[in-house]
Amino acid sequence: MSTLPMTLSRRLRSSPFEKRVLEHGASAFTLYNKMVLPLIYESYEKEYEHLCHHVQIWDVACERQVEIVGPDALRLVELITPRDISTCAIGQCKYAPLCDENGGIINDPIVLRLAEDRFWLSIADSDVCLWVKGIAWGRGFDVRVFEPDVSPLAIQGPKADDLVADVVGEHARKIRFFRFTDETIAGTPVKLARSGWSGQGGFEIYLQDSAKGLDLWDVFWEAGRKYDLRPGAPNLIERVESGLKSYGSDMTIENNPFEASLEQYIDVDKKAEYMCRDVLVRVREEGPARRLVNLVIDGDDLPPMRSDWAVLDDDGKQVGIVTTKVWSPRFGTTTAFATIDAGHNAVGMRLRVDADGVIRTASVRDGKWQLGA
Amino acid sequence: MSTLPMTLSRRLRSSPFEKRVLEHGASAFTLYNKMVLPLIYESYEKEYEHLCHHVQIWDVACERQVEIVGPDALRLVELITPRDISTCAIGQCKYAPLCDENGGIINDPIVLRLAEDRFWLSIADSDVCLWVKGIAWGRGFDVRVFEPDVSPLAIQGPKADDLVADVVGEHARKIRFFRFTDETIAGTPVKLARSGWSGQGGFEIYLQDSAKGLDLWDVFWEAGRKYDLRPGAPNLIERVESGLKSYGSDMTIENNPFEASLEQYIDVDKKAEYMCRDVLVRVREEGPARRLVNLVIDGDDLPPMRSDWAVLDDDGKQVGIVTTKVWSPRFGTTTAFATIDAGHNAVGMRLRVDADGVIRTASVRDGKWQLGA
Repeated sequence: MSTLPMTLSRRLRSSPFEKRVLEHGASAFTLYNKMVLPLIYESYEKEYEHLCHHVQIWDVACERQVEIVGPDALRLVELITPRDISTCAIGQCKYAPLCDENGGIINDPIVLRLAEDRFWLSIADSDVCLWVKGIAWGRGFDVRVFEPDVSPLAIQGPKADDLVADVVGEHARKIRFFRFTDETIAGTPVKLARSGWSGQGGFEIYLQDSAKGLDLWDVFWEAGRKYDLRPGAPNLIERVESGLKSYGSDMTIENNPFEASLEQYIDVDKKAEYMCRDVLVRVREEGPARRLVNLVIDGDDLPPMRSDWAVLDDDGKQVGIVTTKVWSPRFGTTTAFATIDAGHNAVGMRLRVDADGVIRTASVRDGKWQLGA
Repeated sequence: MSTLPMTLSRRLRSSPFEKRVLEHGASAFTLYNKMVLPLIYESYEKEYEHLCHHVQIWDVACERQVEIVGPDALRLVELITPRDISTCAIGQCKYAPLCDENGGIINDPIVLRLAEDRFWLSIADSDVCLWVKGIAWGRGFDVRVFEPDVSPLAIQGPKADDLVADVVGEHARKIRFFRFTDETIAGTPVKLARSGWSGQGGFEIYLQDSAKGLDLWDVFWEAGRKYDLRPGAPNLIERVESGLKSYGSDMTIENNPFEASLEQYIDVDKKAEYMCRDVLVRVREEGPARRLVNLVIDGDDLPPMRSDWAVLDDDGKQVGIVTTKVWSPRFGTTTAFATIDAGHNAVGMRLRVDADGVIRTASVRDGKWQLGA
């Protein structure tokens, strides 16, 4: 894994959990929404194994919230996403790609509905707050848009239910997927959501007072001893195996939701006004020019990508690009995401990848990494 | 200097000059506009000394551009800043704080006027492009707002004129401060501006094709041998001594331009419509609640700030916060910027600073680090 030494300054925000993260020996980091995000303690491989069998505590405070509150809040949230938010109940979360007037993806947050007229967008790495503020002001909407003091802490892994039930009570087990409740933990009010950036199950706990970060961490840490709780982080191996795409790496403002293979998370014909309706109607009609797909690259493990890897057809013509790749212990091969042009991205398609000069065969897979029926 | 290992990924963009930066042994970095920015090669101290006497080449590709082009371009640029842009000539640069409807500073770019209806905002570290896109769409303006493929390379230091004249011709010496011309260097068209983030003089060269980054670097590198050209970067010591404030560290969206002591860069009574006029008229009337000032902290050099340092009055009450601090070789003391409440921020005021538990005396200084007349 390629790293560079990053100098800290006030401009790079620290998380309310950072003291514990450093005490536990986090060894590699990234910056996400201008906040330090720990990625690795010992190694991706060891933490992947542990995450798949036990339970972990993750500092994901960098999943910042954009609060939208006021009489026009629903109208504004509907405007910025092709997903139908009118059906989102209070206490419910919805994954909702945000798109500009060209259909370009601005971010892919989880929308939490806190009240009829109050939402949080729990964002990936781009400054949604500024974009939404601009639209709200430009349209003269009666809303407030701001970043509240909210910092998620994640409890992820197959034993997450046991741990969270020990801390907040047995009712936690009954929280449905993508629903949240109000709880008090370590004397501080939190939202407890069944969600998280892994396929192993678990919760995200939305701390609402950064001064209580260490208290919240410590409550879970103590209760977690009997479950072999360890510190962890969104894990590259696990997220690729589970098919979780990362905004900024796998899709950008250059892609629309069809290109990012997010059809199931949009409602092109929804009733409410939204910015990119015309574009999406057209793309649905014509078909997307390219698509983000799962790709298996044959052969041994490959070194980290030093530059973009081209995806090639039989004639050696570039037809796409690899956006993420990692060796998968579960499948015993290199699993990757790639954006591939129309005509070359069907499941089962055989292609080649130029891995910094090393040519490898590859094949497009379905969401379960299969070659299809 | 406190650093953490930062894992690279596609989400963290690399600059067109990065290959040379790494070859020259850059040893500390930060992330700025989601792009890697080298900060240190050998040490801040050594590079400070060299910068003040010779000439350096800086990878500042992370100073991204927001292009605003179209019939409503001037109207839009005027709307987002309290600075009068109507007087900005084609070929001129203006430093212009951008402010939201509450007067909060969104960014403090250099505005370059490329044509009557075409501007670049050369931005500090926040996503201006998204904010301006939102406003433009919300108001239905006839403009395009996007990030072009433009990457600045800086040539800074007292010998910058000699070096740049050798490369582009003697006419470069006549470019006035904050003016730019069109040139071709290394076979690629660039904008050559007399500007840059140091007080030592020099140029910023706006590369317009990232594929030509190494060619552009190499032309200056070869020509620079006779001037002891070295790689450098925006230097913490030099920028503080020169009074250059950094958006995100020294001022944020929580501050208005009066609080950030930017009065000379705004025109509250300008003719054109702008978003925060009412707020700024009121703040001018009432006086700002706090102010960003120069502060000298007495005694020996202090360790890096691990948390925010409080500024205290005689009774030990907190009246402000230190935003940046560095040991100044020129003044032989710790120079700092601090945001200090009204009533305590006049030049000459004696205060104390809680430097992670170490209490030091301090004094408010003018822009030249003097105690005043």
